[in-house]
Amino acid sequence: MLKRLQHVCIVVKNIDETAKVYQDLFGVKAGHSQVMPEQGVKAVLIPIGDTEIELIEPIDSKSGVAKFLESKGEGLHHICLEVDDVDKELKRLDAKGTALVDKVGRGGLAGKVGFLHPKATKGVLIELAQPVK
Amino acid sequence: MLKRLQHVCIVVKNIDETAKVYQDLFGVKAGHSQVMPEQGVKAVLIPIGDTEIELIEPIDSKSGVAKFLESKGEGLHHICLEVDDVDKELKRLDAKGTALVDKVGRGGLAGKVGFLHPKATKGVLIELAQPVK
Repeated sequence: MLKRLQHVCIVVKNIDETAKVYQDLFGVKAGHSQVMPEQGVKAVLIPIGDTEIELIEPIDSKSGVAKFLESKGEGLHHICLEVDDVDKELKRLDAKGTALVDKVGRGGLAGKVGFLHPKATKGVLIELAQPVK
Repeated sequence: MLKRLQHVCIVVKNIDETAKVYQDLFGVKAGHSQVMPEQGVKAVLIPIGDTEIELIEPIDSKSGVAKFLESKGEGLHHICLEVDDVDKELKRLDAKGTALVDKVGRGGLAGKVGFLHPKATKGVLIELAQPVK
């Protein structure tokens, strides 16, 4: 059902500066950054083995990510687990009474995605993603 | 240099309860829990693809993990990156002036491990681990 940990997401003030830090420390290179206006963030992925580190930076002070940065500072934000069929998984979880942010998949950087609510998972925000074929 | 994201670590109040939540939600099974007295925690690993989710629970109220739980609540704690040679990486990072928690590797659940200081990485606690052969 879960195929792999697709990425770990980190909220930062500046994705370019942070990507440079990771490159300098570990020699890993970020891809091209993308703006995702509907989520109010800029994002970039740094491949590491079979997984990626996703860096996100708020571009809209009213977004959830901007509020996270303001209240908690830079740091780990969520983990993303790859599945075959996001809508099917969200439907299955919803039927069990799982607290969900999304009841149906929507477009995201990682493909078709949907989030569980952290109260479903003891405090961790979990994204499910189905890569675009 | 970095081989893979070995695990993502989550601090929780009770690793057994949380492992049951992950099993119920996603059908993933935790291994046997281990007590690590020198770190003041109990820990368990949940394999997902090529990576693992590590759950840790403080068993010593004075430990750093207990303080994290008290101040921040349950949630993501650190990420662990696999390397070939922890001591060599720590020495290399130290020579660059990187803020480190450990200057030499020590025994951990993931093998021989060493931590960078979060101030070196824009707020994320990063563990380097070299699996025991």
